[in-house]
Amino acid sequence: MTDRSLLILPGDGIGPEVMAEVRKVIDWFGSAQGITFDVSEDLVGGAAYDAHGVPLTDATMAKAQEVDAVLLGAVGGPAYDDLDFSVKPERGLLRLRKEMDLYANLRPAQCFDALADFSSLKREVVSGLDIMILRELTSGVYFGEPRGIHTEGNERVGINTQRYTEGEIARAARSAFELARRRNNKVCSMEKANVMESGILWRDVVNEIHAAEYGDVELSHMYADNGAMQLVRAPKQFDVILTDNLFGDILSDCAAMLTGSLGMLPSASLGAPMANGRPKAMYEPVHGSAPDITGQGKANPIACILSFAMALRYSFDLGDEATRLERAVEGVLADGARTADLMGPEGGTPISTSEMGDAIVAKL
Amino acid sequence: MTDRSLLILPGDGIGPEVMAEVRKVIDWFGSAQGITFDVSEDLVGGAAYDAHGVPLTDATMAKAQEVDAVLLGAVGGPAYDDLDFSVKPERGLLRLRKEMDLYANLRPAQCFDALADFSSLKREVVSGLDIMILRELTSGVYFGEPRGIHTEGNERVGINTQRYTEGEIARAARSAFELARRRNNKVCSMEKANVMESGILWRDVVNEIHAAEYGDVELSHMYADNGAMQLVRAPKQFDVILTDNLFGDILSDCAAMLTGSLGMLPSASLGAPMANGRPKAMYEPVHGSAPDITGQGKANPIACILSFAMALRYSFDLGDEATRLERAVEGVLADGARTADLMGPEGGTPISTSEMGDAIVAKL
Ligand SMILES: CC(C)[C@H](C(=O)O)[C@@H](O)C(=O)O
Ligand SMILES: CC(C)[C@H](C(=O)O)[C@@H](O)C(=O)O
Repeated sequence: MTDRSLLILPGDGIGPEVMAEVRKVIDWFGSAQGITFDVSEDLVGGAAYDAHGVPLTDATMAKAQEVDAVLLGAVGGPAYDDLDFSVKPERGLLRLRKEMDLYANLRPAQCFDALADFSSLKREVVSGLDIMILRELTSGVYFGEPRGIHTEGNERVGINTQRYTEGEIARAARSAFELARRRNNKVCSMEKANVMESGILWRDVVNEIHAAEYGDVELSHMYADNGAMQLVRAPKQFDVILTDNLFGDILSDCAAMLTGSLGMLPSASLGAPMANGRPKAMYEPVHGSAPDITGQGKANPIACILSFAMALRYSFDLGDEATRLERAVEGVLADGARTADLMGPEGGTPISTSEMGDAIVAKL
Repeated sequence: MTDRSLLILPGDGIGPEVMAEVRKVIDWFGSAQGITFDVSEDLVGGAAYDAHGVPLTDATMAKAQEVDAVLLGAVGGPAYDDLDFSVKPERGLLRLRKEMDLYANLRPAQCFDALADFSSLKREVVSGLDIMILRELTSGVYFGEPRGIHTEGNERVGINTQRYTEGEIARAARSAFELARRRNNKVCSMEKANVMESGILWRDVVNEIHAAEYGDVELSHMYADNGAMQLVRAPKQFDVILTDNLFGDILSDCAAMLTGSLGMLPSASLGAPMANGRPKAMYEPVHGSAPDITGQGKANPIACILSFAMALRYSFDLGDEATRLERAVEGVLADGARTADLMGPEGGTPISTSEMGDAIVAKL
């Protein structure tokens, strides 16, 4: 028993495949460095639905609340497309986010130099790109009530509610400003204050927190549609982007794709500090369950391995070990190791998920 | 008096500048072709607010309801940022869309070959790109009630409502399928049915209309976050994209920017047929009011001129004339005429807004 507890939720699709490679990394830290983790594993998403009829059991939820960090693979897939909304695989993920109150979702969009040519954007537009999107993750239209489909007259009507409280906006804003201070000191906040009152409140609260507590950080605002444009046109103008749950979903995927390295990008979802001082935390790759390549040994485990690196840094105070792992990943890329997703049009021979995991462990 | 009535609303920022060039085109059609329009002009947005204290007067609204087509420049700008939400310039535009019931917003994202190198994307990714986004324009979170900012306990709360009825989705879907039949027969519908019930209804209704009336059109569905990714990764996979008001706002801006030709892209917003058989219609460039270059003769009038070409085609049954105008635009580009926005990093001497208008008229 150590004081580092980690709950692994591989989930669906390629989730279990990439997680197997993280296990190798965890084992290496134990055997080579004496840094051990108290690892447990459980089901989430479609896998949990298949076993228990729900995408997350209460027992798993309780466990997630107790550990220092959760590492999740991916959820969802076509096999679950016709499930009732309330038991969709995604609801397991959303329940974790909501009940653990993980309000600050950190999504880096970073261009790995060895892979810059793999982007659909020109090299000079993306090379050296390093932006961080802070997406509010526990509120907004994902969770607002009332919601649902009902009948009015003889028509169906679908309703969702975008709802943000001042406190929800303020805590996300603080996280963004704190992040910016450790980076290039710039925050750009994105909403649609020109058409939505929730966007007006968002902008007002961000301005207030900025004026009262973070006057040293450079703050700008952009409408989210313009934000999407600017991300495509000249992404290097940004440092930290602060935005809400729904805009963050779309803008972070857009930003991730700019780098051409979707299989490379990790994320961290952080909440308030627990009794031991560590933040409530869940880590997951930005990519999804990739049903089209599931079970073929083609998945890139790097996003999940780098998510574990984020866990080392943010949950376990093992910043040096995180850096070591990140360097190992850069090293194997520099050596030319490529999974199938990292093959350019010129081709070459990709290595398998498992070979990539082995190569990274060998570099450590 | 002719039976072709057109209301021109130049609006704010560069709106009046680009509209002056459309006037030249209209004059040319009258003098050279005997094709005349009954043109009136009025205020919208900040310009209307400055004159009347509202971003659209009832008189202008009534006029817009009567004409065959409205041509709008742009609304908004920093001078109006601190206005109360209810009188913001944007509300004038939204009132036009809502009261004219312009539910089908057509936004082409087209890559002009002469400009392909100006995109931030690689030439091979965007050259020949020709997609059409059909954005639902009269409903969703832009208009849903309840909305506003109120106080709960001692906190402010911002609320907006995403609301779609079956009928609203169905008519937008039909427009998309009709468009696809005249193009490459493919529709991709985008929503977040994995997290929003309004997205589930959207997907269901689109499937129902497809099965009942448009089985010959190829239909696919994508989550909007993945849609943003795919637009960046491989935009040529799409033909018609069907999506709601808010996703359409972001995705169409993203798509427009792919082409590197934002100053080139027109749009049409269409409603139900009027008594004379013509659809209720408003045309506007995709770009905004561009306050940073207002009054400097730098604006590109092509998006507004091509919006007038769309009016010729969709409102006035003048398809040949529309094509003639589009060819003239292509012609001047092929000749190398470039406004400042179309200058690549290699530089060159841009021509002014007015010179571009003159060049296009000379080509006609
Ligand atoms: C799987 C889905 C529920 C999720 C979201 O919409 O938040 C995903 O797209 C993400 O970005 O993590
Ligand atoms: C100006 C604004 C109200 C508008 C919108 O959000 O719809 C604009 O962004 C657009 O896309 O036409």
